[in-house]
Amino acid sequence: MNSPLKPGKVWLVGVGPGSPDLVTVRAVRALAAADVWLVDDLVAPEMSCYARPGTHVEWVGKRGGRCSVTQARIQQLTLQHALAGRTVARVKGGDPLLFGRGGEEAAFLRAHGVPVEVVNGISSGMAAAQALGVALTHRAHCHGVTFVTGHTSEHGSPDWEALVRGGTTLVIYMGMSRLAAIRDGLLAAGMRPDMPAAVVMHAGGAEQRSWTGTVQALAEALAAGMASPAVVLVGGVVAEAMALPSELPSAVPAVP
Amino acid sequence: MNSPLKPGKVWLVGVGPGSPDLVTVRAVRALAAADVWLVDDLVAPEMSCYARPGTHVEWVGKRGGRCSVTQARIQQLTLQHALAGRTVARVKGGDPLLFGRGGEEAAFLRAHGVPVEVVNGISSGMAAAQALGVALTHRAHCHGVTFVTGHTSEHGSPDWEALVRGGTTLVIYMGMSRLAAIRDGLLAAGMRPDMPAAVVMHAGGAEQRSWTGTVQALAEALAAGMASPAVVLVGGVVAEAMALPSELPSAVPAVP
Repeated sequence: MNSPLKPGKVWLVGVGPGSPDLVTVRAVRALAAADVWLVDDLVAPEMSCYARPGTHVEWVGKRGGRCSVTQARIQQLTLQHALAGRTVARVKGGDPLLFGRGGEEAAFLRAHGVPVEVVNGISSGMAAAQALGVALTHRAHCHGVTFVTGHTSEHGSPDWEALVRGGTTLVIYMGMSRLAAIRDGLLAAGMRPDMPAAVVMHAGGAEQRSWTGTVQALAEALAAGMASPAVVLVGGVVAEAMALPSELPSAVPAVP
Repeated sequence: MNSPLKPGKVWLVGVGPGSPDLVTVRAVRALAAADVWLVDDLVAPEMSCYARPGTHVEWVGKRGGRCSVTQARIQQLTLQHALAGRTVARVKGGDPLLFGRGGEEAAFLRAHGVPVEVVNGISSGMAAAQALGVALTHRAHCHGVTFVTGHTSEHGSPDWEALVRGGTTLVIYMGMSRLAAIRDGLLAAGMRPDMPAAVVMHAGGAEQRSWTGTVQALAEALAAGMASPAVVLVGGVVAEAMALPSELPSAVPAVP
């Protein structure tokens, strides 16, 4: 047991894209070991199946959720629980180290003497590739993949010209609110208008839906009902998806 | 039960970077449901804890392993087992859709009428960031991350100039055999010599080791004993790791 003099450990736990069975064994154990969960809004409610009875669960999402808590406030909350000697699970969708603010939260807690450990998770971009039935890298199409955010106020606008010239598959997070601007940026950077593109909404989750087309037609995904949270994929690899029926994650057989 | 007339399902299962507890619940279930495992060399032997008693396990790695089987032969083997009505787990390290040849193997099997499902895994680049205690993206340093392979014969040499100009964090797979060439490529592309860089060997596995320094000093990682399998990280985010003691994954508390 922790005494109030000894800060509790904080687990920055990535619980993946939404489906409870896409959580790692390490994450399941960390979630079950926690006294307190501080949960981001986009985390699927189903994840609560991993909470120990009596766990104090608080939703602290910033993005149009039940409540709207600032990043600073979330960090303060986490620190307060840890300094009170509680084991805290800071529960995040995807992977805390990829657009998850995990680095900032870990640095803040360490600066206050709180032990922190990150548990990786499956990022929605990987789940989007799985949903489309394509790989993000393919020797025939590219030599790599770039994950960027289209959400300017958070990370600044990507250098589309450099990214297009780099020739990697592009996976764009938080881009649905500026899909037309992303299309224009890519075309102005010299990307061929018929470059295959896809949008996967709720990737890896129960309500998963996908749209496939081209960069030129990207904004049509909105008319097709695609909305946040969604991931945009752009690149030759996406063409492989066109040949397939769109695949929803099927039931996994239970252990015999 | 499958009859020989009905092909068995093939699960392309990513088992992550090496530690059995970094496997997803879905992967554990797929592994336990399989009659046959076809396992890549770099997969940790500990993963066999997830095999059902009586499972036929074959190691089919291509990279300097026990045996050396060509990609074509691996695909034929997988197909033969599936056409015989067996449920097959094609077991791969990391995520099958990121430098895992998962797209090629899935396309080949689908072309032969075999049902295929991919199970995402934690890629070694993400585990490397966890090992260093840094995020791959940080609003203060970059707006994204690029995963490339340094293994020219596989994917062609990356356009270092475009990648450096793109300003994303770089995560380089399969680069240890050409570390000096990668350093030269990055410097020739105009990257500052003192850009923070790190090498993480056996990321996420029991024998994990890391080196941190700068792009200029990258080749010194070899003298420090870093060797394949390893991931190279380059970018401002790596500086966050310098401030920290290098972190090995600690034991996770058991479920109470």
